Amino acid sequence: MVTTAASVNLLKLLQDKATRLRIDSIRATTAAGSGHPTSCASAADIVSALFFSVMRYDPKQPHSPANDVFVLSKGHAAPVLYSAWSEAGLFPREHLLTLRQTNSDLEGHPTPKLPYVDVATGSLGQGLPVGLGIALNAKLEKSDQRIYVLMGDGESAEGSVWESAELGANDALDNLCAIIDVNRLGQSGPTMLQHHMEVYKARWEAFGWHVIVVDGHDISALLKAFDEAEETKGKPTIILARTLKGKGIVGIEDKEGWHGKPLPKEEADRAVAVLEKSLTGEADTWTPKLPDQRATPAVASPTGAMPTSPYAIGGKEVATRKAFGDALHELGKVNPRVVALDADVKNSTFTEEFMTTAPQRFFEGYIAEQNMVGMSMGLAARGKIPFSSTFACFFTRAFDFIRMAAISQLNVKFAGTHVGVSIGEDGPSQMGLEDIAMFGAEPNFTVLYPSDATSAWAATMLAADLVGPTYIRLGRPNNPIVYSPDEKFEIGKSKVLRQGNNDRILVVAAGVTLFETLKAYDELKKGGIDIRVVDLFSVQPIDRATLLASARAAGNQVITVEDHYSHGGLGDAVQSALSPSGIPVHKIAVTEIPHSGKPQELVEKFGISSKSIVAKVKEVL
Amino acid sequence: MVTTAASVNLLKLLQDKATRLRIDSIRATTAAGSGHPTSCASAADIVSALFFSVMRYDPKQPHSPANDVFVLSKGHAAPVLYSAWSEAGLFPREHLLTLRQTNSDLEGHPTPKLPYVDVATGSLGQGLPVGLGIALNAKLEKSDQRIYVLMGDGESAEGSVWESAELGANDALDNLCAIIDVNRLGQSGPTMLQHHMEVYKARWEAFGWHVIVVDGHDISALLKAFDEAEETKGKPTIILARTLKGKGIVGIEDKEGWHGKPLPKEEADRAVAVLEKSLTGEADTWTPKLPDQRATPAVASPTGAMPTSPYAIGGKEVATRKAFGDALHELGKVNPRVVALDADVKNSTFTEEFMTTAPQRFFEGYIAEQNMVGMSMGLAARGKIPFSSTFACFFTRAFDFIRMAAISQLNVKFAGTHVGVSIGEDGPSQMGLEDIAMFGAEPNFTVLYPSDATSAWAATMLAADLVGPTYIRLGRPNNPIVYSPDEKFEIGKSKVLRQGNNDRILVVAAGVTLFETLKAYDELKKGGIDIRVVDLFSVQPIDRATLLASARAAGNQVITVEDHYSHGGLGDAVQSALSPSGIPVHKIAVTEIPHSGKPQELVEKFGISSKSIVAKVKEVL
Repeated sequence: MVTTAASVNLLKLLQDKATRLRIDSIRATTAAGSGHPTSCASAADIVSALFFSVMRYDPKQPHSPANDVFVLSKGHAAPVLYSAWSEAGLFPREHLLTLRQTNSDLEGHPTPKLPYVDVATGSLGQGLPVGLGIALNAKLEKSDQRIYVLMGDGESAEGSVWESAELGANDALDNLCAIIDVNRLGQSGPTMLQHHMEVYKARWEAFGWHVIVVDGHDISALLKAFDEAEETKGKPTIILARTLKGKGIVGIEDKEGWHGKPLPKEEADRAVAVLEKSLTGEADTWTPKLPDQRATPAVASPTGAMPTSPYAIGGKEVATRKAFGDALHELGKVNPRVVALDADVKNSTFTEEFMTTAPQRFFEGYIAEQNMVGMSMGLAARGKIPFSSTFACFFTRAFDFIRMAAISQLNVKFAGTHVGVSIGEDGPSQMGLEDIAMFGAEPNFTVLYPSDATSAWAATMLAADLVGPTYIRLGRPNNPIVYSPDEKFEIGKSKVLRQGNNDRILVVAAGVTLFETLKAYDELKKGGIDIRVVDLFSVQPIDRATLLASARAAGNQVITVEDHYSHGGLGDAVQSALSPSGIPVHKIAVTEIPHSGKPQELVEKFGISSKSIVAKVKEVL
Repeated sequence: MVTTAASVNLLKLLQDKATRLRIDSIRATTAAGSGHPTSCASAADIVSALFFSVMRYDPKQPHSPANDVFVLSKGHAAPVLYSAWSEAGLFPREHLLTLRQTNSDLEGHPTPKLPYVDVATGSLGQGLPVGLGIALNAKLEKSDQRIYVLMGDGESAEGSVWESAELGANDALDNLCAIIDVNRLGQSGPTMLQHHMEVYKARWEAFGWHVIVVDGHDISALLKAFDEAEETKGKPTIILARTLKGKGIVGIEDKEGWHGKPLPKEEADRAVAVLEKSLTGEADTWTPKLPDQRATPAVASPTGAMPTSPYAIGGKEVATRKAFGDALHELGKVNPRVVALDADVKNSTFTEEFMTTAPQRFFEGYIAEQNMVGMSMGLAARGKIPFSSTFACFFTRAFDFIRMAAISQLNVKFAGTHVGVSIGEDGPSQMGLEDIAMFGAEPNFTVLYPSDATSAWAATMLAADLVGPTYIRLGRPNNPIVYSPDEKFEIGKSKVLRQGNNDRILVVAAGVTLFETLKAYDELKKGGIDIRVVDLFSVQPIDRATLLASARAAGNQVITVEDHYSHGGLGDAVQSALSPSGIPVHKIAVTEIPHSGKPQELVEKFGISSKSIVAKVKEVL
């Protein structure tokens, strides 16, 4: 339904609601003793128009797939969002006064612990990429759901916003409407563009968006703009709303020095009194626009069993990245919830195989990793199982998004290829050597590190099956197959690959270093030294039981070896598991910035080859 | 000097040079068996025009501050850069055939091991931020040095490019000229915009740049464009060069499927033979345009001794972030090489103090952390000591830049504030809980974690004095002062804060957890349990000697406690130091996604308070 003309009563209603949002935001932040009332006040009219006239949603089912979607990218304006849902009837107003308390769900910035929040925000420039993901999902589901993303002006300096801008236009996402609350003032001073609306306009037009400039405090103009957005086909719309920070708060409106500061009690009371005077009583006449008429897509279920690995022990050597591509391809055939995202490396990560089979569920993100990960967060929030893949090193580009995905507890999957010095000639800029440190730092991430094609296949299936953020570490070179297709892999379980009665030391490895360890095993065996070999497979959670038992059965001495930097890698994970038991763990890892060269030469040169393992074993014993 | 008309001979010379660049690129990549000849071929005419007519530089002193600067942002086109310097006479042509070998300095992507490379490239979208930093440095030094950045078209999808675009225009950097080699083809398919030059043009114009669209294979047009760029004042210029990937290579020009592939020997020979036929012999008549007439800025020296800390033991409580701001402010007064960069949080990191004293050396980067870090890389490459600061969590936004700064071995300094759950009410999105994992993973980074204002002051001075990438971890809350102003801190050295003859366990901490440990010390003491307390201070390099001696003197049992996630933090660093000696290390850290709340409540709730330490000590003993 399109609102072509707003009645006088509707305008009064929306103005009253906006006033209440301002009052609530002032009161909640003053009660909390911290927060951002002025950033709420500039956005109050926009939020009022959206929540109480534009959006179709059932306030009793805030996460229904039939609802229109609202993403608060400027997460520091959380109180205005909380107030809107309270006004919509989801919870009583008094609850707003628990803002920022340890036991309240109303945190300083929104998180998906709240049923009406898709992703945590508060790191700026992330809402639009997420909005793109939700919009792509709606298109995929053939839903006429509309997606609204409210951004701040300061955050539009973030490059991630422009990554989304270019792709949103490229993908013709006309179900997406972004709004920038151009309130002129950042945290520590005026923004770069202040109120130069014409510059904003030129930029978004050049990026292919339909652009509407409005007075962000003129509710009638806002309603017209939202109508125009809905009528615009073939491209997304951005509403550039000229606003004043602290709008409606006496003495503070448009003033510098008031970012992120609650009003002292007396000033708050005075400001609220002024605001209350303007209330007409219309606000309580509001009734929601339910999305009843809208078809809700059924949750798609897998159409078949998980495909089994096709690789035979002793068969042709296969890279783990290739096995991931193969597995994803087969998985896509039986699980319609699985989608894939790429950053122009699909021929290196082998997701081009998935693209061929399921082009409508393959999203080319071009060379823009932040937006790719952000889109995957939106897709995951709406029930998809998104696999994003690129070179492991380029996920560092999106670490802040990965961090926010962890805070959001989203079901996102990442596959990082080309890890370590074993990629060879391309040199250090293309080597993922800090990816375990990065993904492993997030406490709720599962981190899998398969060594051969069979275990990489299994890791892909396990990742799809697990509900929660997951990272799979994948290598470039071809490796032998060491596991049979019916070998069972589990998250949190390692594999003992070599063991005997006279093992004098345990060596833990994964990926290319596992094969170096197996070479070392053979060589040491010839010299009469038995070692036990564990393929770690699951870095996080770690298989402490197997590691402990193996270490105890192998002389209580452990060596780890990894194609990763020393800090925050596989070795640290093993040390964490065994250190409290006092079992010495000796790490072998890459300890300096590497260089170009042939893969095997680099494995030697940077000290993670069988030679280094043999030497370390002898040194320790 | 401006070239207003190119003579016929000059054109022939430049065409010949371009042809040689193509020939060299083909030969080198074929010899290496990998690499990107087609990405070199599209850029060859641009590089020829720059190196052999436009740029003023002394080929014998490639890093002279008087030279014009060239940044190859599309680092995969490294062979064309190497060939240009060989053509300029820096090294013999035969050396090009060592490309990508383990012992060659000609790596797959350029690194500053080469005297003519400022920063490592190969992760796309980083050259322009770096170029901005070098351009800011030239403005600061009142040099008329010009800076040229050659980008690929695919990489302009990276948001970091647009962060630089907006700031380059905002800062009116007319000494900066970017060129996009619009060759239409990415790695795995066509780029988003292919050859739609008008879309590129509209975008860069909207971002405030002077835009010139040219045929990137028309050398005369390129020379005219570079002249126009030099004449353009008050804004940077971008030259949008329409090119063909593989230009001049028979059978491959403008063809998909040839990204990152060397020509097989026979095809290479055939392609080279065709190219050689077009050579006129003019190339060898080239003489460099020396920048003799240009004043070289003297290297600035400190004008005074390092300022000493003003905080007294038992004095007013001060946050470590405030002490950093104070120290940087004083440092700026005596060391003209020190510059500061901000991402709109200068009132939280207290770099606004520096801004007040040295506004010309303070660079406001707005909310765009990637570009901020990239600019600092450019400034460091040109001899400045740049301190970038923001909330620790937002440095995750720039991890890929930090990674490349590590590869580049640059003298960059990062100060991350607001670490851990102890920030309180703002909630998890604002808490730096993975920053030690991130910075510590890079093997050549120094990581300092001061606990009180005096040690934070010292850390700032040490960071400025050290040549190499450095991170300082800083907290939000005010803490007591525990060190006297004349306490000597060293990189790689910890402090034993409590010790006795009956110590039964060692507790290692830093930041807010140090104060929790001191509380635990007092409480345990009352209960008759003596503990030894070490303030780690230097996380990387770590003070293994002090840790080992302290552990041995304290019952061979260690507890670490940190306001950081468990993986990759302070505890892992201590475990790495002690695990090989078999000393058990028990970690206390934040093990789940935290929540908003009062700082002390969160320290309790997430298990890093004195209570948790006391409990752990008793459990271990």
